[in-house]
Amino acid sequence: MKVQERIETALDQFLARGESSVAPPRLQEAIRYSVFPGGARVRPQLVLAVAAACGDDAPEVSDAAAVAIEMMHCASLVHDDLPCFDGSELRRGKPSVHAAFGERLAVLGGDALIVSAFDALNQEASAHPTRLVALLNILAQGVGVPSGIIAGQAWECEDHIDLAQYQRAKTGALFAAATMAGAAAAGVAHEPWRELGDKLGEAFQVADDLRDAVSNPEDLGKPVGQDEALGRPNVVAARGIKGAVSYLKELLAEAMASVPACPGEEALRELLMKQAAQFLPRELAQEAA
Amino acid sequence: MKVQERIETALDQFLARGESSVAPPRLQEAIRYSVFPGGARVRPQLVLAVAAACGDDAPEVSDAAAVAIEMMHCASLVHDDLPCFDGSELRRGKPSVHAAFGERLAVLGGDALIVSAFDALNQEASAHPTRLVALLNILAQGVGVPSGIIAGQAWECEDHIDLAQYQRAKTGALFAAATMAGAAAAGVAHEPWRELGDKLGEAFQVADDLRDAVSNPEDLGKPVGQDEALGRPNVVAARGIKGAVSYLKELLAEAMASVPACPGEEALRELLMKQAAQFLPRELAQEAA
Repeated sequence: MKVQERIETALDQFLARGESSVAPPRLQEAIRYSVFPGGARVRPQLVLAVAAACGDDAPEVSDAAAVAIEMMHCASLVHDDLPCFDGSELRRGKPSVHAAFGERLAVLGGDALIVSAFDALNQEASAHPTRLVALLNILAQGVGVPSGIIAGQAWECEDHIDLAQYQRAKTGALFAAATMAGAAAAGVAHEPWRELGDKLGEAFQVADDLRDAVSNPEDLGKPVGQDEALGRPNVVAARGIKGAVSYLKELLAEAMASVPACPGEEALRELLMKQAAQFLPRELAQEAA
Repeated sequence: MKVQERIETALDQFLARGESSVAPPRLQEAIRYSVFPGGARVRPQLVLAVAAACGDDAPEVSDAAAVAIEMMHCASLVHDDLPCFDGSELRRGKPSVHAAFGERLAVLGGDALIVSAFDALNQEASAHPTRLVALLNILAQGVGVPSGIIAGQAWECEDHIDLAQYQRAKTGALFAAATMAGAAAAGVAHEPWRELGDKLGEAFQVADDLRDAVSNPEDLGKPVGQDEALGRPNVVAARGIKGAVSYLKELLAEAMASVPACPGEEALRELLMKQAAQFLPRELAQEAA
C-alpha cells in the first residue's frame, strides 16, 4: 500500500498549499471533495510505476506528475458529471460535485483543478527544466485539443463522431500521458512509453465496458447501463462479452510487449498485470488472465 | 495599431497550432469564437506594454505571455456567461458561446483555453527556463485558488462575501498577472510590477462600474445595469458617480507612481494614461483626465 499512500499524501499536500483563509471556503471544500476520497487512482499509480521502472531519481517530480495527472482526471469527472453532460448525481458512491455544491462550484472547482495540475508540475520540477518542459507538454497534449480528454469529451457534441478518435482521446490520451509523464519525471525519453499508455487505456475502456454490461450498481458507485442508454460506442455491444474479453487479452499482451527496455522492466510488467486484473468484474477476471 | 496586430496575430498563430483535422470541429470552432473578435484586449496590451518598457529582449516569450493572459480572460468570460452564472446570452455584441454552441461546448471550450494558456507559455519560453517558471507561477496565481480570477468568481457562490478579496481576485488578479508577466517575459524581477497591475485592475473595475451605470447597451455589447440586478458590490452604488470618478483618478495616480524604474518608464506611463481614458464613457473621460 506504499504507492497508494504516497499518492494520497502528495495530493493532500498539493491541495493544502493552495488552501488559504483568503480563498472562498466553499470552493476549497468543493475541490477537496472532487479529489478525496478517490477512485482506484489508476492513472497516478501508472505514473509512479513507470517512474519507478525508470529509476525514479527525482521522486518529488514523479509525485507532482502523478498529482497533475490525477487532478486532470478529477477535473474531467467533475465537468463530465454536469447536468449539460451526463447529469450524474452520483460519483464514487457519493453525490457528484454539482449535486453536493451546485453547478457553479462544479464548473469553477474543475477549472481550479486544471490550473493546479500545471502549477504542481511547475512547483516541483522547476529544478529540472528539461523534465518540466516535457511534463508540461505531455499534460497539455493529454488534456487539450486536438486529441486530449477535453477533445474526447467534445466528440459527444458532434453530429458525426470519429469513433477511433473519440475512444482514443476520451480515455487513452490520459493513460498515454500517465506512462509518458512517469518516464519524463525520471528524466527518460518519454515517447517510447506512449504505446504502453495507449494500450492500457484501451484495455481499461474495454474493462469498463464489460463492468458496465455485467455489474451491479453497488460495485461501481455509478448507475450501470449508462453507455447503452446514452448511445455511446461500446466494445461489448460490438463484440459481445466473450469477444470483448478476448480483445482485452490481446490489448494487455500488446501493452506488455511494448514496455521499453528499462531497469525495472520485469517488475513493471508483473505489477501492471496484477492491476489489470482488478478492473474486471470478479467473474471475468480469471477468464482474462 | 502595431501592438493590436501583434496580439491578434499571436493569438491566431497559437490557436492554429492546436487545430487539426483529428480534433472535433465544433470544439475548434467554439474556441475560435471565444477568442475572435476580441474585446479591447486590455490585458495582453498591458503585458506587451510592460515587456516593452523592460526591454522586450525575447519578443516570442512576451507574445506567449500576452496570449496566455488573454486566453485565460476569454475562458473566464465563457464560463462566467454560462446559465448557472450570469446566463448572458450576449457577449461582445454577439451571442455568447453557450448561446451559439450549447453549454457543453462552452464548458469544454473554456477548459481547453485554460490548458492552451499554459501550453503557449511552455511552447515559447522553454528556451528561457527561469522565465518559464516565473510565468507559469504568475499565471497560476492570477487564475487559480486562493486568489485568482476563479476564486474571485467563486466568491459569488458564498453566503458571506469577503468584498475586498472578491473584487481584488475577480478583476485585479489578472491585471497583476499581466503586468508581472510582461516583466517576467523580459527577464526582469516581476514582483515590483504587481502594484501597477493591482491599481490598474481596480481602476478598470471602477471604470466598468461607471460604464455599467451610465452607458447604452449598444456601447457595451452586453446588457447594462447587470451589477445592480445581481446585487454585486459596485463602486458607483457606494460612492455615487462623482465619487467613483474621483476615486478612479486616485487609483490611476497611484498606478503611475508605482511604475518601477525601467528603460521605458515614461513612455509606459503615457501609454497607460491614454489607454485608461478609453475605458470611460465619453461623457466622463474628460472629467477623469
